[in-house]
Amino acid sequence: MAASDAGTAPSYAGYAVKGQGQALEPFTYQPRPLGVTDVEIHIDHCGICATDLNTIDNPWGTVHYPVVPGHEIVGRVVAVGSDVRDLQVGQAVGVGPIVLSCMAKECDACSRGLEPHCLKVVGTYGYPYPDGEYSQGGYARAIRVHQHFVIPIPDGLDPAEAAPLLCAGTTVFVPMHRYKVQPGDHVGVLGIGGLGHLAIQFARGFGAKVTAITSSSGKRDECLKLGATQVVCITNKNEVTSLTRSLDYLVVASSSPHLNWNQLASLMRTFGKIVVVTSSKHKIDILPLSLLRNCVSVVGSLIGGCDEVAQMLTFAAKHQIHPWIQKLPMAEVNQGIKLLREGKVRYRLVLSNDA
Amino acid sequence: MAASDAGTAPSYAGYAVKGQGQALEPFTYQPRPLGVTDVEIHIDHCGICATDLNTIDNPWGTVHYPVVPGHEIVGRVVAVGSDVRDLQVGQAVGVGPIVLSCMAKECDACSRGLEPHCLKVVGTYGYPYPDGEYSQGGYARAIRVHQHFVIPIPDGLDPAEAAPLLCAGTTVFVPMHRYKVQPGDHVGVLGIGGLGHLAIQFARGFGAKVTAITSSSGKRDECLKLGATQVVCITNKNEVTSLTRSLDYLVVASSSPHLNWNQLASLMRTFGKIVVVTSSKHKIDILPLSLLRNCVSVVGSLIGGCDEVAQMLTFAAKHQIHPWIQKLPMAEVNQGIKLLREGKVRYRLVLSNDA
Repeated sequence: MAASDAGTAPSYAGYAVKGQGQALEPFTYQPRPLGVTDVEIHIDHCGICATDLNTIDNPWGTVHYPVVPGHEIVGRVVAVGSDVRDLQVGQAVGVGPIVLSCMAKECDACSRGLEPHCLKVVGTYGYPYPDGEYSQGGYARAIRVHQHFVIPIPDGLDPAEAAPLLCAGTTVFVPMHRYKVQPGDHVGVLGIGGLGHLAIQFARGFGAKVTAITSSSGKRDECLKLGATQVVCITNKNEVTSLTRSLDYLVVASSSPHLNWNQLASLMRTFGKIVVVTSSKHKIDILPLSLLRNCVSVVGSLIGGCDEVAQMLTFAAKHQIHPWIQKLPMAEVNQGIKLLREGKVRYRLVLSNDA
Repeated sequence: MAASDAGTAPSYAGYAVKGQGQALEPFTYQPRPLGVTDVEIHIDHCGICATDLNTIDNPWGTVHYPVVPGHEIVGRVVAVGSDVRDLQVGQAVGVGPIVLSCMAKECDACSRGLEPHCLKVVGTYGYPYPDGEYSQGGYARAIRVHQHFVIPIPDGLDPAEAAPLLCAGTTVFVPMHRYKVQPGDHVGVLGIGGLGHLAIQFARGFGAKVTAITSSSGKRDECLKLGATQVVCITNKNEVTSLTRSLDYLVVASSSPHLNWNQLASLMRTFGKIVVVTSSKHKIDILPLSLLRNCVSVVGSLIGGCDEVAQMLTFAAKHQIHPWIQKLPMAEVNQGIKLLREGKVRYRLVLSNDA
């Protein structure tokens, strides 16, 4: 259904949310013109990210409808603009949560390879492009994206599994990569879901000792299969206390309202970093002394730059990182949303188009 | 009044708090025996640190009375144990907030030069030594301290000015040193008091652009004299907003209950660090998104290791850092406490013994 020749104005078929609280519905729309630096991608797979639910729930009243969600996109190049370099028709590629930034040398973010922090960033769906048109995402047959934001999928990665890596994988890989997690470091992962199950695997890839911390004792065996060295149940006081002053990093992938931040800080080694990777609506509240006592940091981390995404994919291929996915046909997107809301996903959903 | 020959058991004269809520009173006590690795110091000056007030207020009910406060000690060596190396009688030296740690190679803290984080650390006053005796601090004529915790005062530092450097100076220098503040970095300093007025000077020493942030517009001229590039009044919304996404570091030396942590995070550049150096009883409360949006950290920092204190003193001498001090005779310690409680100190009090 995606046109493969530049300059035409085909229509795309996808699934859109058309108003707050509504289910996704089939939706046909005109893609953006294929610019000289753009790539057209036939979408094979698109992960469902928990943040996609915000297009339905519209918690801040900011969603522009109709919107086609989806920012964990994997597919094949079907057309390239005349100035596209390094990407060829037929190549397996991915697109994560952003599709444009200013890319100016003067930009504090872009000049450091931190495109998501550019003030002019365009998210993959629901963001206005500079021309005013809103971006439409990956619950669709195709998408057109500036080449800079199209990341080649390395050999050795299963395309469906690669989809969740493009957002969830980046989110957990990037802080470990930036902080240079070393073999022998002790990494805690709190909250074993879509993000956490990947954090365990990436931390193992970096050679760390990994402690999975979960509120669900039923996930113990799964955590060990994912590569955790040990598993601690957050409600078991003795188990939690055994971690006192032992963690170099704690990846917080939980949005529970019950997190005891002072307790979490007490688990950190001197200079330990509590890395928050999920945007819970619940405030972090912590006494200054809990941070001072052991020079602990609470650090926010938000996806990563395009180069970092490419490095993450290479790392994932090399270290055999496998997202645990449940596949659904794209047409069953509403079933996927339902499973996600019910907390029944182990651990990431991927929508797939027909071959 | 301090004995200068090892092996004898002279008595020391100092000022002690003898019970919760009480004024300081003259107090005579037996010093610890001068061990083979110990140094006896005649105290010339001792700064008053705000944490000294806790010996009177006893907020956690943990103070062991009587206690001689004071952990910003400057004086001269008057005796050394037989195994003391590198320190000589007559030498100008300082002692900060700690007087012992385990110093074991196996210690996670001591092996990294982070003695304050050793689980067996002995604070300069009010802490039990391994033999059960409690440490007594610097509001006194003399003190005996293990050589490792006695720091030479470099030439070029005024001894009275050096006193506040040993705690307050270390507290603000160490995070900038560890994080390698660079010329051109933008450092905000929030709260211009004993810590903040030194943070401005140290940040300038590192070559940073320094923005002083104060709730007291009356301090504007003083901030500029201290070396601030500009001054922002925290209650002036336009001034505060002008800092949006501009700070590499924000040193929080304020214990105001009114800090808006989400607003402070919005002032940080990507990867900016909010460095908390004061132990307020008020919780830090901040939305995860405020940290995620720009990969901001909230970092606790607590004094520094012995090597870092020595580096701080060298840096202060080189960069002409001058604590603004008000001197009082040691006998007027209660007047000093009163001035501190009334917020009338500009910016650090130093008690001095007769020559």
